[in-house]
Amino acid sequence: MTMHDLRRFDIVTLGETMLRIVPPPPLRLGQSETLALSFGGAESTVAANLAWLGHRSAWFSRVPDNPLGRQLVRTLRGYGVDCDDVVFDPQARLGLYFVELGPAPRGIQVWYDRKHSAASLMRPEEIPAGWIEQARWLHLTGITPALSDTCAQTTHAALDRARAAGLTVSFDVNYRALLWPPQAAGAALEPLCKAADITFVARRDADALFGIKGEPSDVARTLYGRWGGTVIVTSGEQGAAAYDGTAAYHVDAIPTTLVDRLGAGDAFTSGVIDQLRAGAPLETALRFAAALAAIKLSLSGDIALVTRAEIERVMRDQSALLRR
Amino acid sequence: MTMHDLRRFDIVTLGETMLRIVPPPPLRLGQSETLALSFGGAESTVAANLAWLGHRSAWFSRVPDNPLGRQLVRTLRGYGVDCDDVVFDPQARLGLYFVELGPAPRGIQVWYDRKHSAASLMRPEEIPAGWIEQARWLHLTGITPALSDTCAQTTHAALDRARAAGLTVSFDVNYRALLWPPQAAGAALEPLCKAADITFVARRDADALFGIKGEPSDVARTLYGRWGGTVIVTSGEQGAAAYDGTAAYHVDAIPTTLVDRLGAGDAFTSGVIDQLRAGAPLETALRFAAALAAIKLSLSGDIALVTRAEIERVMRDQSALLRR
Amino acid sequence: MTMHDLRRFDIVTLGETMLRIVPPPPLRLGQSETLALSFGGAESTVAANLAWLGHRSAWFSRVPDNPLGRQLVRTLRGYGVDCDDVVFDPQARLGLYFVELGPAPRGIQVWYDRKHSAASLMRPEEIPAGWIEQARWLHLTGITPALSDTCAQTTHAALDRARAAGLTVSFDVNYRALLWPPQAAGAALEPLCKAADITFVARRDADALFGIKGEPSDVARTLYGRWGGTVIVTSGEQGAAAYDGTAAYHVDAIPTTLVDRLGAGDAFTSGVIDQLRAGAPLETALRFAAALAAIKLSLSGDIALVTRAEIERVMRDQSALLRR
Amino acid sequence: MTMHDLRRFDIVTLGETMLRIVPPPPLRLGQSETLALSFGGAESTVAANLAWLGHRSAWFSRVPDNPLGRQLVRTLRGYGVDCDDVVFDPQARLGLYFVELGPAPRGIQVWYDRKHSAASLMRPEEIPAGWIEQARWLHLTGITPALSDTCAQTTHAALDRARAAGLTVSFDVNYRALLWPPQAAGAALEPLCKAADITFVARRDADALFGIKGEPSDVARTLYGRWGGTVIVTSGEQGAAAYDGTAAYHVDAIPTTLVDRLGAGDAFTSGVIDQLRAGAPLETALRFAAALAAIKLSLSGDIALVTRAEIERVMRDQSALLRR
Amino acid sequence: MTMHDLRRFDIVTLGETMLRIVPPPPLRLGQSETLALSFGGAESTVAANLAWLGHRSAWFSRVPDNPLGRQLVRTLRGYGVDCDDVVFDPQARLGLYFVELGPAPRGIQVWYDRKHSAASLMRPEEIPAGWIEQARWLHLTGITPALSDTCAQTTHAALDRARAAGLTVSFDVNYRALLWPPQAAGAALEPLCKAADITFVARRDADALFGIKGEPSDVARTLYGRWGGTVIVTSGEQGAAAYDGTAAYHVDAIPTTLVDRLGAGDAFTSGVIDQLRAGAPLETALRFAAALAAIKLSLSGDIALVTRAEIERVMRDQSALLRR
Amino acid sequence: MTMHDLRRFDIVTLGETMLRIVPPPPLRLGQSETLALSFGGAESTVAANLAWLGHRSAWFSRVPDNPLGRQLVRTLRGYGVDCDDVVFDPQARLGLYFVELGPAPRGIQVWYDRKHSAASLMRPEEIPAGWIEQARWLHLTGITPALSDTCAQTTHAALDRARAAGLTVSFDVNYRALLWPPQAAGAALEPLCKAADITFVARRDADALFGIKGEPSDVARTLYGRWGGTVIVTSGEQGAAAYDGTAAYHVDAIPTTLVDRLGAGDAFTSGVIDQLRAGAPLETALRFAAALAAIKLSLSGDIALVTRAEIERVMRDQSALLRR
Repeated sequence: MTMHDLRRFDIVTLGETMLRIVPPPPLRLGQSETLALSFGGAESTVAANLAWLGHRSAWFSRVPDNPLGRQLVRTLRGYGVDCDDVVFDPQARLGLYFVELGPAPRGIQVWYDRKHSAASLMRPEEIPAGWIEQARWLHLTGITPALSDTCAQTTHAALDRARAAGLTVSFDVNYRALLWPPQAAGAALEPLCKAADITFVARRDADALFGIKGEPSDVARTLYGRWGGTVIVTSGEQGAAAYDGTAAYHVDAIPTTLVDRLGAGDAFTSGVIDQLRAGAPLETALRFAAALAAIKLSLSGDIALVTRAEIERVMRDQSALLRR
Repeated sequence: MTMHDLRRFDIVTLGETMLRIVPPPPLRLGQSETLALSFGGAESTVAANLAWLGHRSAWFSRVPDNPLGRQLVRTLRGYGVDCDDVVFDPQARLGLYFVELGPAPRGIQVWYDRKHSAASLMRPEEIPAGWIEQARWLHLTGITPALSDTCAQTTHAALDRARAAGLTVSFDVNYRALLWPPQAAGAALEPLCKAADITFVARRDADALFGIKGEPSDVARTLYGRWGGTVIVTSGEQGAAAYDGTAAYHVDAIPTTLVDRLGAGDAFTSGVIDQLRAGAPLETALRFAAALAAIKLSLSGDIALVTRAEIERVMRDQSALLRR
Repeated sequence: MTMHDLRRFDIVTLGETMLRIVPPPPLRLGQSETLALSFGGAESTVAANLAWLGHRSAWFSRVPDNPLGRQLVRTLRGYGVDCDDVVFDPQARLGLYFVELGPAPRGIQVWYDRKHSAASLMRPEEIPAGWIEQARWLHLTGITPALSDTCAQTTHAALDRARAAGLTVSFDVNYRALLWPPQAAGAALEPLCKAADITFVARRDADALFGIKGEPSDVARTLYGRWGGTVIVTSGEQGAAAYDGTAAYHVDAIPTTLVDRLGAGDAFTSGVIDQLRAGAPLETALRFAAALAAIKLSLSGDIALVTRAEIERVMRDQSALLRR
Repeated sequence: MTMHDLRRFDIVTLGETMLRIVPPPPLRLGQSETLALSFGGAESTVAANLAWLGHRSAWFSRVPDNPLGRQLVRTLRGYGVDCDDVVFDPQARLGLYFVELGPAPRGIQVWYDRKHSAASLMRPEEIPAGWIEQARWLHLTGITPALSDTCAQTTHAALDRARAAGLTVSFDVNYRALLWPPQAAGAALEPLCKAADITFVARRDADALFGIKGEPSDVARTLYGRWGGTVIVTSGEQGAAAYDGTAAYHVDAIPTTLVDRLGAGDAFTSGVIDQLRAGAPLETALRFAAALAAIKLSLSGDIALVTRAEIERVMRDQSALLRR
Repeated sequence: MTMHDLRRFDIVTLGETMLRIVPPPPLRLGQSETLALSFGGAESTVAANLAWLGHRSAWFSRVPDNPLGRQLVRTLRGYGVDCDDVVFDPQARLGLYFVELGPAPRGIQVWYDRKHSAASLMRPEEIPAGWIEQARWLHLTGITPALSDTCAQTTHAALDRARAAGLTVSFDVNYRALLWPPQAAGAALEPLCKAADITFVARRDADALFGIKGEPSDVARTLYGRWGGTVIVTSGEQGAAAYDGTAAYHVDAIPTTLVDRLGAGDAFTSGVIDQLRAGAPLETALRFAAALAAIKLSLSGDIALVTRAEIERVMRDQSALLRR
Repeated sequence: MTMHDLRRFDIVTLGETMLRIVPPPPLRLGQSETLALSFGGAESTVAANLAWLGHRSAWFSRVPDNPLGRQLVRTLRGYGVDCDDVVFDPQARLGLYFVELGPAPRGIQVWYDRKHSAASLMRPEEIPAGWIEQARWLHLTGITPALSDTCAQTTHAALDRARAAGLTVSFDVNYRALLWPPQAAGAALEPLCKAADITFVARRDADALFGIKGEPSDVARTLYGRWGGTVIVTSGEQGAAAYDGTAAYHVDAIPTTLVDRLGAGDAFTSGVIDQLRAGAPLETALRFAAALAAIKLSLSGDIALVTRAEIERVMRDQSALLRR
């Protein structure tokens, strides 16, 4: 029996997933009488991406016990995410957000309506004993601690349990300016960055929260000095950089067609985790992640409904061929 | 100069209007990836129906200062409702509800997500001086007092100002079981019923809130004994009855095709008000209202996009003719 | 060489076909931001129905030389209608009509915008020599003479040429109240009724135009007395009756689901012509036509996209079986 | 540890699931340029219905390793069906069928294109050791043996293994006339009926395959004489009957709105199994199943996306109430 | 009481608004069975744009008294345009146009069907006394005089009344080649250009109608020499230029995504008027107008559903940021 | 009587046409619940393109006798293609393919499900006597011989009959890698290339099948050496080249917007044939073909619904002008 089989999950994660409501592009919110419904949440998106790539992932949250909460779980479970421990709340609401996928110069706009959500009521003691301990990897983001005090407590409790049980821990800073001010976020999140084995941070968040400016490679190096571990700095069309104390890597963004920006960061994160779990070198992980993010940007929806073969094809840069 | 011109509005009303989200029938909520967006609120629906029939109506509420709040106001203003005094709230959310228009035996189902809405923050002092005083008719419903303390205060303040300024006041009990228990509702709403000139109450609400059972005509008579004024009791497919202390009237429901039940009660109310404002006898008002409600049931959306000629044609029972 | 091959067409017809614009039911015209486009015209619908059933039919008209005119011809040609002699007009517009397929009590409503159309400019001399003479049957309706003087002349010229060349002539009164008053229509159309071998008339038109009231069978008998030939009187849900001087027949309407009423009369007419051309007895023709009309009522669009096997199945009353 | 936990699955089933392609009603196949995609297969539908009601169900089949095969598995897994042992075939195609949901008199029509499908290549040895043995119930249908010799062998092998491991076995005759003639089907399926604990058979199939005519109750009694076990005879709008050697039960069909007939039989079967697994009396099982089937008929798609609470509400006949 | 309050309207305008019918891109007209309905007219678009930005605007026209005419008025009134004086015509038709929004190399194509429209029957005496006199600004275009003699008379009468009452007058040449030849248009429109305070003219129209070629700045200067006032010359992707006798200004076009070209010129005009009414310098007005036009090009529909904050954000060139 | 009239068809062709199923872009196959249906086949697309441009074209194939087969024929006949000799097969299936029109880096992907199709059962003896002999041009492709032995025989028989009857023969290599390996294809198709008067081959197919690399002009020249006739080598965005033994021509690809790549090659082929049939020089034919292909790339669907005037406008490079 291999190590793989000794634990129940390859990766576990927790956080809020919301109803995502989008008028059909290029219509504006406020201009359309038809809306497309899907679900979006950074952590469950990573869980779904990794499940689709073959990892045994699990997600913990609170969702309302109504048709929308059940549709959300049905969606994630379809991708292969284990949702057996999600708490169904008969009272609370599903957080939601409206998105307008406007082409330039309008750009994408997001209106949140997420206060008082079921997920914001998450409590540490609701995560079953063993759920974290029987996994090999825990992924957290900086969104959850901003949702409520109990969500912050849940994040820290999960982290502590993961450390105690020897899991690898990844943390995505994922700063949400509409939830809290940068100073508060920086102060709250830096301990999580330090405790994680791998930290993902957008270049502009490194500036806003931690006051670190510069090229992604320089930012990664500087943050490594503060946090240790592996620091990965993403910078949209400027690509991404990583530093792990031994070597610095940079990957360019792959040219793509912008269909839906939401979920691209989570696709990148998922790509890195997929590769590191398989023992790939950090440089390969960045290249794989960049390909996955590029494909995701050309897709509708947060989740990257992409096969490994397609990612590898884009890495080989043969995307434009028509096979028939 | 006529009496008509001396006051700014024919009818004013206030209350909450929500975003209404419906999967395309016969799909279920939780089964569809597309949703239809519209807006629904008992009071603004009455205002829109009456504006469309030619009355100068106005609506007061709080709505969020975002694309959805503006779309809501745009919709109502399009029908001719004066929304110039609506308060735009830069912080609060728009209440919303999900509706599944399921054919039998599923039936219609509604899931509310209306807590913490902008409208629930309405305050009496926000209604501008003169807004009520320059109108001829005030319409209120029993939904508003259930939303919050300030909403209850706003309802009572509006009623007091209307009484002081000599407006006709209509009140629709419109009990919402998901907002408050029947005893509390009955206690809170009976003073409003007594203060109104015309009260609308569904037969099942008369039972649940006031313990009055029986045929609609009997219920109307009994409630008249408690409240005075004109009492109109609606009973869906059983039609409606009215009693005003002098005579009892009953109108049968007109056969129709059930497309969308929401707004049918408001259409009935609008029909009665339209006719009474024009000086029609109560019996005619009920017949007109029943025709408008029957057409509304065959229409999508809360608002009755119907012309007076169409209502009169249904009253003459010539609906089935194809003219070309 | 068979008789069949001696003439170029089995049936020819001429008239106006319009762009038909319909909001998706149950939405109202004026309530929808999406419209469905199709084409409708009594004569081309008969031509398409008969072509689909295997007859070599042809249609003559004027249509604008623009994408809509070409789409119209493409649609008819797809069903097998020969449109090679249709005149393309680079200047004139395509007549159009808006339809609201409202369920009861709204009912169906039609708004025409057909004045100044290309078809109304049709002239007798535009019908090529031989086009009628090489056919075996001519079908005309009472709509065309109402469109313009030149259209009336074209109708009469076609009739005269058909009589001269020995074609069978059918005529559908098809009174359009929005085009002309009943007296004028009656006076103008009665000569055509007399000249035709087979006349179709709706019971209400027999009353409005010719002052003949009564049961369909009686009306048919009376009109036979005035016109001779074969008179077929249709009466919607009351079925249809026919009289040809020898025997009277009646057929009940077949129960159906009302999806789209437009084109049902043309389907009935097509069914009769199909059967009479095949030498079937008049009674069989009525039964076949009633089945085709019943199926058409359950279909969207004017044209009856129906196979002979399906018609025969409905005639055998086995419609409800699911075969799989 | 409870009995429940000793086995891996509550119920297992196997068979073909196809791509289901439907033009949007009331459009015909051949009339629409848009199609709705879903998936349908009797066995996986039962598995999904039961998973949605809380049973741990699993499904075995072969599906193509392409986006459609993966979407199919994603759909079933979303409902909670364990698909971990489904064989992905890189070569074979997904069977498919086109459905026209025509209102009367058209009725529903189905065109199959299922030959050479991946599922028809299913082989007995592909079902993993233990997969059946670790379950408590096996459900089979008479469709699978008709697909191919290897499918027939797989059905029999599964049955034998289930008998050996002490599972309850249910069998749904589900005769498909387009796959094989009634005599061949009757001969092939009767051994399976005899071997099953519970057999479902449509009244018309009892006649066509086994020559048994009569009222459902009589048919059930007669077939019980031949097969033993529990025999359940369904008869659409005439309801269903059951006989288990001790008592005969009959349940009326519940009035419903026909939206989509496909899957109604599977919903009925699922309802019976759900109840019998919970130890309910046969009569209760029939009533529960009839309610579930009635709701399913009012739903789009084969799978019954219905909650237990909704079924119980329909059993209490309170479907028409609007709660808000 | 401020100056603002002394007059009833900030800006009034008059002209034709048509039904706009568009197949969903990238489908062709003639290729789609679904069409999107909206309304378009240069003057009402300016009125709606300005009302949405907070100005009290009013529009005069004739529209048919049918569901489409009422939907048109409902749409404009929703944006805040006062339509109380629009004449409803029970007989006349609504002009319409079909648009194909084809990507390059197809490009946008327009087919008009606007002859005999209600708007073309507009007459000077239908504009109520005081309607112009109680406004502060009149906006006219060169489309209206091309529609009919009475429309030309109405344009001139409006201009004369505005001059007499001291309004600011803006005029947009807006040459429509399908309505009249350039010589006739030039002769008819030049007096209006001379009488206006502010004239908008496209560079290619300056050439076609007035024979003035050159860079926009040069054209503006030359036309100022002929007309005086303020001359604004637009040149699509080359930006726009203005000359008012004191200084010349030029503004570049802002990079945008072409979604719908129609209405971009009206958005530009609206932007200039918005700013000039607020007392902004001409240069600022051009920059604001260029931003509004750029956003409009990325939007569906003629009307610019845009907030002032969004325009200012684009002026600051921060369009690409995602805020969440 | 002119030469034109002496033969029944201007051009005949034969081959398979499949049902084409596409999720609405940018959705993936496997991500959408809605699909767009159309039909695609290289030969019938050429026939439709040429019919639309005014040629009398005819197509031969086998199609299933079901609603989809009839819809296919209806579609082609609408464009003007004579389908009177198509064989309707009551048993066989319609081949189909799923297409995902993914933007880069996804690119277009095609999944075929075409085995066992009706078309693959085509037999030489089914082409009626005279059908080829009464035409002036035969067009064949290298797809048909790959479908089945009888299809290969049919191709060769058609070619032989055309040669015998003096038709011009064009052949499009159109290599389909999913149907057969390049060596087999090269060996099977080269005799057809040699026998044709005009051969179309993609640059990459020239390499894969015949081992000829290089610039299109060089490839054309080399292949001319092997095959004679006129050789046209297409190379997507690199344009196309031709050599006919006298002179070499090259045409650049025209800038376009990629909406749907499928059918672009057939549009190019159609453009060449259209011009050569009209006696245009080869260079003009290439330019016309390039314009038609560029427009087609900006269109949905395989068939080029384009007018000659539009092609000529693009040749004149005036595509960007808006005329209204």
